[in-house]
Amino acid sequence: MSGTEGNRAYGRKPFRRSKSHFTDRITADGRDGWPVEPGRYRLVVSRACPWASRVVISRRLLGLEDALSMAVTDPVQDDRSWRFTLDPGGRDPVLGIGFLSEAYDAREPEYPGGVSVPAIVDVPSGRLVTNDYQRITLDLATEWTALHRDGAPDLYPARLRDEIDEVMADVYEDVNNGVYRAGFATDQEEYAEACERLFRRLELLTERLGNRRYLVGDTITEADIRLFTTLVRFDAVYHGHFKCNRWKLTENQVLWAYVRDLYQTPGFGDTVDFDHIKRHYYQVHTGINPTGIVPLGPDLSGWLTPHRREELGGRPFGDGTPPGPIPEGEEVPAAGRPPEKGTGRGTT
Amino acid sequence: MSGTEGNRAYGRKPFRRSKSHFTDRITADGRDGWPVEPGRYRLVVSRACPWASRVVISRRLLGLEDALSMAVTDPVQDDRSWRFTLDPGGRDPVLGIGFLSEAYDAREPEYPGGVSVPAIVDVPSGRLVTNDYQRITLDLATEWTALHRDGAPDLYPARLRDEIDEVMADVYEDVNNGVYRAGFATDQEEYAEACERLFRRLELLTERLGNRRYLVGDTITEADIRLFTTLVRFDAVYHGHFKCNRWKLTENQVLWAYVRDLYQTPGFGDTVDFDHIKRHYYQVHTGINPTGIVPLGPDLSGWLTPHRREELGGRPFGDGTPPGPIPEGEEVPAAGRPPEKGTGRGTT
Repeated sequence: MSGTEGNRAYGRKPFRRSKSHFTDRITADGRDGWPVEPGRYRLVVSRACPWASRVVISRRLLGLEDALSMAVTDPVQDDRSWRFTLDPGGRDPVLGIGFLSEAYDAREPEYPGGVSVPAIVDVPSGRLVTNDYQRITLDLATEWTALHRDGAPDLYPARLRDEIDEVMADVYEDVNNGVYRAGFATDQEEYAEACERLFRRLELLTERLGNRRYLVGDTITEADIRLFTTLVRFDAVYHGHFKCNRWKLTENQVLWAYVRDLYQTPGFGDTVDFDHIKRHYYQVHTGINPTGIVPLGPDLSGWLTPHRREELGGRPFGDGTPPGPIPEGEEVPAAGRPPEKGTGRGTT
Repeated sequence: MSGTEGNRAYGRKPFRRSKSHFTDRITADGRDGWPVEPGRYRLVVSRACPWASRVVISRRLLGLEDALSMAVTDPVQDDRSWRFTLDPGGRDPVLGIGFLSEAYDAREPEYPGGVSVPAIVDVPSGRLVTNDYQRITLDLATEWTALHRDGAPDLYPARLRDEIDEVMADVYEDVNNGVYRAGFATDQEEYAEACERLFRRLELLTERLGNRRYLVGDTITEADIRLFTTLVRFDAVYHGHFKCNRWKLTENQVLWAYVRDLYQTPGFGDTVDFDHIKRHYYQVHTGINPTGIVPLGPDLSGWLTPHRREELGGRPFGDGTPPGPIPEGEEVPAAGRPPEKGTGRGTT
């Protein structure tokens, strides 16, 4: 998630997502100079960001929490972009930096592009390795296998890759990025085109998911992760803030059940922080929300209600098993449970 | 609806609705100098405005269309406020003016206050008589009785006035004006207080309307009209644009049935123009919607679906009858029916 997209509404051109700039890969054979190694890299995410959240989920499902540690930024950037202001002293305890931009600068001095999450940083050198949001999760699934937990699912099965890629390409264009194209549109026509395409795609996905539990095959794959990270934000931010308001997800029986099924699956909902999500979008994008006021809604109490998707069959983790409990220190407030007293977070 | 409230989000003080400035009354005995007379006055409204829409509905229910003619302004004001740009030549054919402000100026030269609808103008002199949005409908119900149609309902029955006034006072404070206090709040605390109060009141109204068809007594009264004009706008504008988003009305079984019941009653839904409503709020309030983009949603197809409120009993018009068809030239596009080709109006 770029640090500059928040001011898009002031621009004049249609919204275009920046290509990732640093596309080195961390691989089993280390051919780019970055071999898979436990403890060597640090994943930097914002829990607000759908692109970063893909990685947070994959890391949980694959059991890579010990092998790849994680830094969580403040959901609200300032003009220096993503900050470690949630950490004691305002510095990430592992990297020792206050701003993610420092890792970008260590990689390429005076780097002029946007600072984005997800980012993976080489701990020994403090240098950014990759911010390639389209590639990172695929590599976790296929290159980091030696470090996967016992019972880790195959999120990108070789025999289904063509179908997964095809589904993900449409979902990326119309849904993942489509909500941004609608929300950051600067004229009515640009908005309407994006919004129409988004809901047309959601209708097609509704048909697809009406009688099958997951998008491809009968297990959770990368395709589900990528659709989930947009859908889980839909009613909380895209519906109102980005004007994607033909209907709320709660009004679409199939997609609402689908996203709750995933939310209630270990590795998904236990990574979602609605407070981070809402504060990021509503406070950072002053071009479309000048007051910075964060809405009280929506009511989140429905997220833990029964979805009955298990009646469709499917084997969430295939021959594998669900991930264990979330590591200490990585917990998030749960929607659908009363918030802890005095935190004022998460639910309404 | 004031012509200046759109820029409220730039201000620093909590939102306060201006008191009506011109509070002369048109009465049966003419004690303020303005006797009830057929054809003498012209009602000026915006179909976007909930305060003006009260009068549009009352006029229909009471059958005053011939006695009190109506001018409909462009839903989008410019810096000269409400305009007759929908009329041929950009002038109201009866008053002969291009801007409502001209009638205000005729009443009080160089009047410095806001120009608001609803307004009633004396046709012979071209002077504004009243813009007292809290009083106009009560006078239509109680002072204009000689001109009511046969079978006109009693919208403000003497024996129920205390209860009606009490209900309307709470609805005004927390709902009618509450949505504006939330939407035009300039800080989080002011917004949150208004939004909490709004939804608390809506929950109380949900209880009240769970087992009775109308708010007071067993017939439609002024109290229902005033609640209706806010509720009918709820999902279309207040939910997103004003951040009143704990839930959509469609998610509240009781209120959604209540508002559809009224919408489907002659005199209510046949006065509602969702296109005017959406364009006004989203295009005029650049302080909270800088792009002026009007959302495509929400899906309006549910407005004509069965509500089953008749099972609660109640006699909508008491001993009276429903109003006849809407006069020629006053038709609006209907939600829940396909829009006419090429108009691009109303439904999505």
